[in-house]
Amino acid sequence: MSTAVRSLRLGELAAHAGVELQGDPDREINGVATLDAAGPGDVAFLANRRYRGELAECRAGAVILQAADRRSWDGDALVTANPYLAYARIADRLFPTPAAPAGIHPSAVVAASARVDPTASVGPLCVVEDEAELGPGVCLGPGCVVGRGTRLGAGTRLVARVTVLHECVVGARCVIHPGAIVGSDGFGNANDGERWVKVPQLGRVVIGDDVEIGANTTVDRGSLRDTVIADGVRLDNLIQVGHNVTIGAHTAAAAFVGISGSTAIGSRCTLGGAAGFAGHLSIADDVHVTGMAMVTHSLREPGAYSSGIPALPSREWRRNVARFQHLDELVRRVRSLEAVLGVAHDVDASRGGVGNSGNTDA
Amino acid sequence: MSTAVRSLRLGELAAHAGVELQGDPDREINGVATLDAAGPGDVAFLANRRYRGELAECRAGAVILQAADRRSWDGDALVTANPYLAYARIADRLFPTPAAPAGIHPSAVVAASARVDPTASVGPLCVVEDEAELGPGVCLGPGCVVGRGTRLGAGTRLVARVTVLHECVVGARCVIHPGAIVGSDGFGNANDGERWVKVPQLGRVVIGDDVEIGANTTVDRGSLRDTVIADGVRLDNLIQVGHNVTIGAHTAAAAFVGISGSTAIGSRCTLGGAAGFAGHLSIADDVHVTGMAMVTHSLREPGAYSSGIPALPSREWRRNVARFQHLDELVRRVRSLEAVLGVAHDVDASRGGVGNSGNTDA
Amino acid sequence: MSTAVRSLRLGELAAHAGVELQGDPDREINGVATLDAAGPGDVAFLANRRYRGELAECRAGAVILQAADRRSWDGDALVTANPYLAYARIADRLFPTPAAPAGIHPSAVVAASARVDPTASVGPLCVVEDEAELGPGVCLGPGCVVGRGTRLGAGTRLVARVTVLHECVVGARCVIHPGAIVGSDGFGNANDGERWVKVPQLGRVVIGDDVEIGANTTVDRGSLRDTVIADGVRLDNLIQVGHNVTIGAHTAAAAFVGISGSTAIGSRCTLGGAAGFAGHLSIADDVHVTGMAMVTHSLREPGAYSSGIPALPSREWRRNVARFQHLDELVRRVRSLEAVLGVAHDVDASRGGVGNSGNTDA
Repeated sequence: MSTAVRSLRLGELAAHAGVELQGDPDREINGVATLDAAGPGDVAFLANRRYRGELAECRAGAVILQAADRRSWDGDALVTANPYLAYARIADRLFPTPAAPAGIHPSAVVAASARVDPTASVGPLCVVEDEAELGPGVCLGPGCVVGRGTRLGAGTRLVARVTVLHECVVGARCVIHPGAIVGSDGFGNANDGERWVKVPQLGRVVIGDDVEIGANTTVDRGSLRDTVIADGVRLDNLIQVGHNVTIGAHTAAAAFVGISGSTAIGSRCTLGGAAGFAGHLSIADDVHVTGMAMVTHSLREPGAYSSGIPALPSREWRRNVARFQHLDELVRRVRSLEAVLGVAHDVDASRGGVGNSGNTDA
Repeated sequence: MSTAVRSLRLGELAAHAGVELQGDPDREINGVATLDAAGPGDVAFLANRRYRGELAECRAGAVILQAADRRSWDGDALVTANPYLAYARIADRLFPTPAAPAGIHPSAVVAASARVDPTASVGPLCVVEDEAELGPGVCLGPGCVVGRGTRLGAGTRLVARVTVLHECVVGARCVIHPGAIVGSDGFGNANDGERWVKVPQLGRVVIGDDVEIGANTTVDRGSLRDTVIADGVRLDNLIQVGHNVTIGAHTAAAAFVGISGSTAIGSRCTLGGAAGFAGHLSIADDVHVTGMAMVTHSLREPGAYSSGIPALPSREWRRNVARFQHLDELVRRVRSLEAVLGVAHDVDASRGGVGNSGNTDA
Repeated sequence: MSTAVRSLRLGELAAHAGVELQGDPDREINGVATLDAAGPGDVAFLANRRYRGELAECRAGAVILQAADRRSWDGDALVTANPYLAYARIADRLFPTPAAPAGIHPSAVVAASARVDPTASVGPLCVVEDEAELGPGVCLGPGCVVGRGTRLGAGTRLVARVTVLHECVVGARCVIHPGAIVGSDGFGNANDGERWVKVPQLGRVVIGDDVEIGANTTVDRGSLRDTVIADGVRLDNLIQVGHNVTIGAHTAAAAFVGISGSTAIGSRCTLGGAAGFAGHLSIADDVHVTGMAMVTHSLREPGAYSSGIPALPSREWRRNVARFQHLDELVRRVRSLEAVLGVAHDVDASRGGVGNSGNTDA
């Protein structure tokens, strides 16, 4: 339960969220809360119908819900097909991000050749290098580093201790969370037969508008081309984006996703936590990959993809693993039985995804 | 082998560790070492019995060991059922963490409204924001950021370049390692049909006493509720704790563990490296999950759980993967053979963990 | 396409890279580019023969290629068996890392007892603690922390916001990328029956020459021994190296690799992204592990190792997972069929890797 510093009328909130008000437009609202914790000054929401039973005891001033749930709640209601979206808009209205004061904190180190808009805010102990540009309303929290020649678009916020290295471009209204690194060298190494020789990483990172990048996530600069993150992308914490990767608009990736060099991810994809992508792949638009999936081939069709085996009690797991490691043998045994019995086996050639196997016998 | 700046008598160390001394209480000890590297001024320990053979050549001044190993060592001994624990206590006594000088380094930026106990130490280039509270003996190493309104309990130490964002609570005697982020925004996004709309993250992170958080680990703040880490929890490096997660007391998690939003982990659990937990799960107390396990269902019973398949030579792996991708077909082939032979197959319905499959045919 | 600040003659570049020039040694070159983007002032390279078709339309001033591809290109050429290596050397020559000015930025906090070579560069807002040593040409970018007693060898560069904690040793010509942590405490915890007791981490991290460590990677200090990274090692971003780990010379690891405590990795290994290694293992020289592999046993022979199952459409995956979780049962069914038919099954005992299973029945 969070209480805002200000109070707004329910009618204004409904209008702001673009939802239908069924109830008293003059009710004063000063907070948001879960269904079980809400009081008369709070708005709550029902986005997951399995919590519908909580409406009976709910004390909220108003509830955001779908029309189908309206009869389970006789208080004031904000009715919409997408209660979570309406909640997001109302919570943002009640709890706006506090504006940082314009200007440069005296402890920050800002190069004389940097161009800092007078409405931008540079927090304590930041470093802004030569020729960097901070647009109107840009906000650097404490301890951020903006490299030589890098440009941050209007309203972009680096929360704290963010590093954006040289010659990168970040669009407008982005949020980059603490510890994130943008523009680190890609992992490029040539081998001279005995040792690795570093391959200079000469590309940039180019990030669109309205992108959010999570805490301690790393986005490598391109080697010769740029690494490109399109508008509206959402990256969670501790993600790795390799050099030359492109990520299409409005794709969202959960924590620990790893995208190897030169892979292209489409638009509107969702990538589950710890999903891993090999390099040089092409992933179509509207692909949805579940958590911990291992993607070693291009995915050319929209749709859902998965791998990995859910945890079992360790004793059962051990048995199955032992079997897995003799799976090829098991297939041969079945084939022998089929031969003995004279049973024909039609190879089902429709299955994909085995392309990296030299063994297509079935 | 490490040599302490001070020397202590063996009898004092035995008393400090609460173990039985068999030998000379006046022996001077000034270091700790492995069995093979120890000299006469060192204490060594035998915690893993497979190293017992090293006792024959060991030159340590004293060895911490179990009674059962006493006859393999004729020097001074510290006898205990848990040699590793006794070692931890003795090493801590010989090598206490150096105390940082009380006071605020002149290069730190501390808000006038922050409450810093006079015994606290604020290192160079730290930022402490408005209304933050640092208790007695708190130690901030170089480059830390403590956000607005955040409270750090007595004796808590942020090693270096740690970020604890606004309105969080950290208990007493915690240690947070470099690069860790506490209180970053959770990954909350509503979809308006075309793009993601950020859901404000209004909860806090609340951490108990005696918690340790590893380098570059990230702990997201709650969305409406708090993210809660109970007393005595141990988090290794590069862990992700999602919003609204709760972790019970004395649970330990190894590097790269990922806990998705709103999952509740019990007390006294151990989570192996890179184990991943889907969101909204409930994990019982005393659950032990092995490394890289993929947990997609709640685990309601204590015990050990695993998944993943150990690496094989790539050629064998390729064969088995090809077979795995036709496993459903293989089962059908076996069923055909059973039908031909008129062999009955009893479905074993006792196996769990397949709940997310629409296909329970066997 | 990147344009250098200087222009060099093709003959000089060929000599620098040690490759054969077939063409005009006086041609002026001032950039590098991909085959499709190169213009007359650029060098391009053909390292992957599947891009050979691009030579027909290529406008580059010169192309680095293998002799076998020479006839597909009638412009100036630099001919070598290893075009990628030659490209690395030429790009480095055209785009040298800008030298930072020698001296200590006035905003840095450097202990009086630190020894900073007069040719070293200490950037803004760095902290260098007591007795630390920075050799000739060392470069600390903005916001780095070098702990008490730590030594950095000649020419080593910490890019920005790097933390190297106390008493560590880094060799010559290393590059450590932003957010990396070297020397954090290992994850050592003894259990007193109720709670975890921290085991002091008294070892160091010792890093050889010419090592590169990626962004937000963490390398823990040893517990009693040292954590050791040998010459020429390459670590990508977001890697975890546990306490007491040793990594042999010229091994390269991709992002998210996790190496648990006390594991020894050989020389010249390549470790694919997100590969995980249990603790106390021994991995031979010249082992190559593919991405996301789970290594739970020592690997004593050189060669390629893999695990994990590539992603499938989720519907197929669900079916196969359900089958996997009954795999033990399936084997028993096949055995029953074999018994009915009187077919003998020879156990293939040559397969390894099942050592942790109590069940070797097949």
